[in-house]
Parts: sequence; C-alpha cells; structure tokens
Amino acid sequence: MQWLYLNGSLVQSDEAAISALDRAVFHGRALVETFAARDGRVSRLEAHYRRLCDSAPVLGLAVPLTLAALESAVAAVLDRNSVTDARLRLTLTAGPGDGAPGSVTLTDQPLTDYPPEQYERGMHATVAAVRRNETSPLSRIKCAAGLLDGLLAREAARAAGFDEAIMLNTRGLVAEATVANVFIVKGNRLLTPTLESGALPGVTRAAVLALARDSGLDPTETEVSLDDLRTADEAFLTNAVMGVMPLTRLDGAAIGDGCVGGATERAANGLVGESRH
Amino acid sequence: MQWLYLNGSLVQSDEAAISALDRAVFHGRALVETFAARDGRVSRLEAHYRRLCDSAPVLGLAVPLTLAALESAVAAVLDRNSVTDARLRLTLTAGPGDGAPGSVTLTDQPLTDYPPEQYERGMHATVAAVRRNETSPLSRIKCAAGLLDGLLAREAARAAGFDEAIMLNTRGLVAEATVANVFIVKGNRLLTPTLESGALPGVTRAAVLALARDSGLDPTETEVSLDDLRTADEAFLTNAVMGVMPLTRLDGAAIGDGCVGGATERAANGLVGESRH
Repeated sequence: MQWLYLNGSLVQSDEAAISALDRAVFHGRALVETFAARDGRVSRLEAHYRRLCDSAPVLGLAVPLTLAALESAVAAVLDRNSVTDARLRLTLTAGPGDGAPGSVTLTDQPLTDYPPEQYERGMHATVAAVRRNETSPLSRIKCAAGLLDGLLAREAARAAGFDEAIMLNTRGLVAEATVANVFIVKGNRLLTPTLESGALPGVTRAAVLALARDSGLDPTETEVSLDDLRTADEAFLTNAVMGVMPLTRLDGAAIGDGCVGGATERAANGLVGESRH
Repeated sequence: MQWLYLNGSLVQSDEAAISALDRAVFHGRALVETFAARDGRVSRLEAHYRRLCDSAPVLGLAVPLTLAALESAVAAVLDRNSVTDARLRLTLTAGPGDGAPGSVTLTDQPLTDYPPEQYERGMHATVAAVRRNETSPLSRIKCAAGLLDGLLAREAARAAGFDEAIMLNTRGLVAEATVANVFIVKGNRLLTPTLESGALPGVTRAAVLALARDSGLDPTETEVSLDDLRTADEAFLTNAVMGVMPLTRLDGAAIGDGCVGGATERAANGLVGESRH
C-alpha cells in the first residue's frame, strides 16, 4: 500500500481525499512542484520551495507550510514507503474559495521514467501543434491548469513515436519542451529561451545557467528560433526529475551529429558535482 | 446545509470528497458544463450534454452518465436544496489515471451574478492582457484547465473597475470574453468570432446564431477585430447562465450609443421565446 502526505499527516493513497468543491478541481487552481529524491536526498529543495512561494500570489494563495515542514514531509513519505529514490510531487490546492483552507499533498512515484539508455541515445522530439501561451501569467508559474496543454502535447508526440515535443510560443519562437526546459549549444555558447519566451523558470534550468561557466560554457538567456535549434551543435532538456537529458533528434533529423555531445556531458557532470555539495 | 450530487448520490457539501490523486487536481483534467435552472427547468440541457460528450475524447475520458441521469441529478439537487433558480455546474474529473474511475459532481449556487439592472446598464469591459490560445485543443472544449486564464483575467478586470474582459487570440483578433461569447451588430448583420478564432463553442452562442433570422438579423461566424468591436452599432455577450448580456462600453468608450440596442433586445427576446417552447 502506498502512503502519501496530506495536510500534515500520512494517509493511504486510496483514502486520500480532498473537497470535491476545491478550485483545483473546478479550474486547475493549484500550485505544483516536482522533484526527485536520490539516496533519500532532494537536490535544490529550497529553490523549489522558493519558486512555490514566488508563484503563490499569482493564484492568490498562501503557502501553508514551511521549508522545514516540507523537508520533514519528504523524509516521512520516503520512509513510510521504504524508498530512497522517487519522483515526488507537491500539490497545493486553492480550496473551495469560501475561506476554507486548501490542501497540501506530497506523493511519490517510482523513478523509472528515464532509464540509463535514454541518456545514451538522447531524446527524439517533434514540434507540438499547440503553442505555449507566453502572454499568460500561468506560463511563468508551475500550476495544475498550466500543465495540461503540455501533457496532451507529450501524449500526442509519444503516440507518433517521439519521446518529447518542443513547444513554440505564440510568436513561433522556442519556449520549452512539454515538461522540460530547452538548451542549445553553439560553439562554447549555451543558449536557452528567456522566461518572456514562455519558458517556465525551471529550478534545474537556473542551476545549469549558474554552473555553466564552470563547464567552460558561456550562458545566455535569449530568443531561440526553431532554426537555431535545428542547426545547434548540441541540445539538451532539463527538469528536476531527469536532470540534463540530451536532445539528439528533431522530427527525425539529427541535431549536430545526433550523438550526445561534450558540452551536454559537461553540463550534466557539473550538475551532478554541484548536487553532491 | 447545501447538498450536491456526487457519483450518483446526494451528499452534504462539506462531506463531498474526491481522490487527492485525481488528475483534475494534478493538471486540471476535468470537463465542465455550467447552466442555469429557472423555475426548476434548464434550457438546452441536451445541448450541454452533447457538448460534454463531444469534448470527452480530447481529454481521453468517457462520459459515465446518460442524459436521463443528468436530468434526474438536476431535479434531485434542486429538490434537495429547495431551490428552483440556480446556477448549476457539472464537473467530470479524469480520475487518478490507474484505471480507477473519475468523479461526477453537480453543484448549485445562487443565481445572483447578474441582477436586472446589469441588463439595463450593460457590461463595461476592458481588453485582457492575456491572449486566448486558439492553438490549444483546450480552447475548443470546456475543461477545468482551460478556465483559469479567463478567471484570472476577469478578476483583474474587476479589480480595475470593469465588469468583464475581452480576450484576443494570439493573432490579436477577438476570441471571446472571459466566461462568455461575444457578438457584435453592424446594421442588420450579427457577427461572432469563429471557433478557429478561439471562441468556445457556447451552447447559448449556437442558440443565438440559430434564432437570429427570426429576430431579423443576418448571422455570420467570422474573424472579428478589436476595431470591429469598437465601431459596432451594438455588442452583447452570451453564456448559459446570463443569456444575452449587453456590452455597452469598452475601456470607457461607448459601443454605439452606449445604451442597450434594439438588435440586442430582439436577440434576448428570441432566446427567451425559444426556451419556453
């Protein structure tokens, strides 16, 4: 039986319930953080917590738990389910909107999405039909309602035999992948779409940018066109669960030589080195 | 105590719970229909049910209740709460995604949003900063995740002293209002944005289009620019709860003479006449 954290307690997953009138149910009004535990430890949990607090005002929410309470919840869920490696999801719902509080859940899933061979082969992506709406305040926070377009685009990409989809913004520029940020390498330059392009302010994105110089890369947040991506020397995707994932093909065509590149490996190694501090 | 319909039973609202792992909570994966009961009767309930069934495949859902079951649920909720006039909301959630079923709720709220004087004065709208993403499949169905952008835009408009906000699509054309479709009148022509413009296929929108000729109006679904709206003879908004609502000002400037127009009144009367059949 799986256990999860719900409003300060551990409950069995089939008994975990929230109000049917919660605005999370009614219109996706809930904040989300996803991160991985490895060897019982979550990298950059404080940065996830800080993003949650920064995002809350956009939905008119307060964050009802401290960072210390979140750390305790992570430890309790891992311990109760006897796992050390897991994909964790924190969900903070808006509540029914009549003054009644929302709910906080922390759930874990097996960390099986990204096997080692995926990192060796890299991901093969297509371009999503749906655009990412960079004019929406939801594009700059991680919230339930803001996730569905990307998840449907990823389902469509997988059904068509791809691993992922690149989402362009309303102006046709690269915004991000469906659940990950996008980086491209040109020479020693490391480029990633600006937040104004519709990129979610990813915690791993920020860490890669901060650590790039240590890997001999010159990082820039800028506008990235689809042609920039197609003609890049290397490309990779980041999120807090998969870390740095090579992106080796776009709509069947190789990016660079279609193999995992040296700069991608250095960025990945830099991230792993940092997280051990 | 308020009662609501949940999965075939009537339950008290503070005891109505759904799984905390429902994908409605996680990423707004839920279908929604809203409609009004007046004198115990819902207009065009079958059209709402048909739209629900048409929308379900977009989210990979099945509709677990028949039209007759929906009619019974409406009657039961109204009866149990001793009301004949109410705003009703049907919510069909996706469930946890492991084969476990989703939930169906039908809730009622007082029908107080639109007092008679609002219909006499008409609504004063602004233009929302957020664009409606007509490239998203969610723009063509009524789903929880697709509602949040509009609700936030409406909150912002109200905080700025307006009643509503007009949402443009990513190409800068009029898509709809935040929770209503938009119609404009030019001479005897009645124009409304195409679904491809990002207009939700509103049940009342369809009814107004179908009944327009009886009101001496020539209806067309077309691309509508902001300038078309600003220079219209009359404009009005429609949804299933408010019916036909005059739109008399945009960003402070009068539309037409700023009063409720004759074509708007004819469209409203046509709708009322039809619903009594």
